[in-house]
Amino acid sequence: MSDSEIKVLGICGSLRRKSFNMAGLRAAGELLPAGMSMTIAEIGDIPLYNQDVFDAGMPEPAKRLRAQIAAADGVLIASPEYNFSVTPALKNAIDWASRPPDQAWQDKPIALFSCTGGPVGGARVQYDLRKILTQIWGHVLPRPEVFIGNSASKFDADGRLTDETTRKFLTDLLVGFKAWIERMRRR
Amino acid sequence: MSDSEIKVLGICGSLRRKSFNMAGLRAAGELLPAGMSMTIAEIGDIPLYNQDVFDAGMPEPAKRLRAQIAAADGVLIASPEYNFSVTPALKNAIDWASRPPDQAWQDKPIALFSCTGGPVGGARVQYDLRKILTQIWGHVLPRPEVFIGNSASKFDADGRLTDETTRKFLTDLLVGFKAWIERMRRR
Amino acid sequence: MSDSEIKVLGICGSLRRKSFNMAGLRAAGELLPAGMSMTIAEIGDIPLYNQDVFDAGMPEPAKRLRAQIAAADGVLIASPEYNFSVTPALKNAIDWASRPPDQAWQDKPIALFSCTGGPVGGARVQYDLRKILTQIWGHVLPRPEVFIGNSASKFDADGRLTDETTRKFLTDLLVGFKAWIERMRRR
Amino acid sequence: MSDSEIKVLGICGSLRRKSFNMAGLRAAGELLPAGMSMTIAEIGDIPLYNQDVFDAGMPEPAKRLRAQIAAADGVLIASPEYNFSVTPALKNAIDWASRPPDQAWQDKPIALFSCTGGPVGGARVQYDLRKILTQIWGHVLPRPEVFIGNSASKFDADGRLTDETTRKFLTDLLVGFKAWIERMRRR
Repeated sequence: MSDSEIKVLGICGSLRRKSFNMAGLRAAGELLPAGMSMTIAEIGDIPLYNQDVFDAGMPEPAKRLRAQIAAADGVLIASPEYNFSVTPALKNAIDWASRPPDQAWQDKPIALFSCTGGPVGGARVQYDLRKILTQIWGHVLPRPEVFIGNSASKFDADGRLTDETTRKFLTDLLVGFKAWIERMRRR
Repeated sequence: MSDSEIKVLGICGSLRRKSFNMAGLRAAGELLPAGMSMTIAEIGDIPLYNQDVFDAGMPEPAKRLRAQIAAADGVLIASPEYNFSVTPALKNAIDWASRPPDQAWQDKPIALFSCTGGPVGGARVQYDLRKILTQIWGHVLPRPEVFIGNSASKFDADGRLTDETTRKFLTDLLVGFKAWIERMRRR
Repeated sequence: MSDSEIKVLGICGSLRRKSFNMAGLRAAGELLPAGMSMTIAEIGDIPLYNQDVFDAGMPEPAKRLRAQIAAADGVLIASPEYNFSVTPALKNAIDWASRPPDQAWQDKPIALFSCTGGPVGGARVQYDLRKILTQIWGHVLPRPEVFIGNSASKFDADGRLTDETTRKFLTDLLVGFKAWIERMRRR
Repeated sequence: MSDSEIKVLGICGSLRRKSFNMAGLRAAGELLPAGMSMTIAEIGDIPLYNQDVFDAGMPEPAKRLRAQIAAADGVLIASPEYNFSVTPALKNAIDWASRPPDQAWQDKPIALFSCTGGPVGGARVQYDLRKILTQIWGHVLPRPEVFIGNSASKFDADGRLTDETTRKFLTDLLVGFKAWIERMRRR
């Protein structure tokens, strides 16, 4: 591992232990192009955002997430959609990390994918995430878009991604993400 | 108070103790047309949505909210926007209440307003809320739209709504909401 | 046909002669519940909206559309999506019809469906249409949502809807629309 | 003017002769940083998009626009919002330019601003434009956002931008746009 390796932070929008999105993030970790590495953040222990709590001092789990985002060259978000939009856990993580000073999303390359049990694959949450993240000056990879529907047929009982087409989609996403991170680096 | 009184549940998207939106909800409670009453829900103690927790049994604070929504003739939501969209606390409340069986938002009349410290007044969060709530078959009052910007100049230090124009806007919203609740009642 | 028949105006977002959405509207016309009738509007001859033109006098094709919407008890919109949003022809029709006085969408029940050549079926345009139409006080039927993907396999060469599952979806939509129109009538 | 000058194409979403947005584009033309130049496109003569027309051969006005976009280093869009979303004329221009082959928006840096007669300044249309343009791989400058409300008080009778604060906002936008164009150039 050289100093110039591209470090990616994975964030999962679902807190479920057997989350398809967490399984997808782990699969992505195995499919990374050479020169990239990934760690996965924990967001389930961050308290619900409350400005009084923020004013009293950033909670440790939020501090930890902010430091992880700051240290990463890019953030890979995998999330289901709840009621056509973002999950509470993911919005909570995004909001805590966005508070000044040192807003953690500023100028950060981001890529998205979503796994759902149903057939649609989470298209709607991705557009909401794009709106939210772009406005806090995250740079969201425009394409490819990866929507993984019918997830139960694509992961095995141990959460391993067995569907070859989906592995190919994820690989394309990661290759594109690597190029995007390199492109968005300030010259 | 007769049996036919219209019962409204107020939900505040901010958990801050001195929240302008909570102050706005309290002001709305004083401006209700005759024949309406309001109680305000507590949502800050509901844990972050996690399907494993749901599967193990609905937590008490979520049960309480669901029962309050079910018992109400309409729900009045006041919320700031965080990063151009819904607050984690509010999305969390919406999602817990939406789970089957007895999805609590089904056929429920809803009205929205938003108070913000800045000048814009929360327009963006209201459109996200409309999308989310409509898709779970809530009936969101189309108009009037009420965006209360520069809130610090409209509420006094004790959170009392002192701005007459804003009191008028809220009154119009509540009058419209009453008519909307009556109209949406199944015949 | 009695005086109390429910009159629906169909509007198609595509101007293509062999449009799947126009074929879908025609199929809907054959699947209407008893007591409903439908005519289909022409929108391709309405000039691009230009306020100078409006100020000089509403063009005849726009006048015609406004009168048709005003006379209808409900409007059924079928549209593809172009670049993730509304087609120019449909947005143009909506905007011309929305101008004062006598904004044509005011309090009008509306139902949506979309046919696309690809697999997704037009989910994204429907949410944009919901936002647009709701804000001009149209009442858009919340459910069922009907997204007809892979249209070439569902219509025959003459544009007849041959897919039984899709006929069932459209029938459910129309039954729901009839109930919605009756419910939204002012008492 | 050297070969390395940054060429910007201006597109106005309103067809009105005395459009505030067109006046804003002209003002932007005078406020450009050194090393940038701008021409303004004509979009009012492009016919409503109809795939049958496209199949029969791209109309000349659409061809002209596509060539202008292709030749530009960046596109500056100024637009009002109609019914909370994009104007028909602008969506029409975007859609014609997006058709294959040689989709004109591919990898094109874009900046947005909006002028409105009312106080809000067009926030909603900008988010719809961001969604649309990003999905066709346009790179929309994230910030600053420029919403020019109450336009009648900021332009004089000849359409000259007289408000100094607004001139400053536009200048900041153009400075940011220049840096964005340079950053997004493929290395």
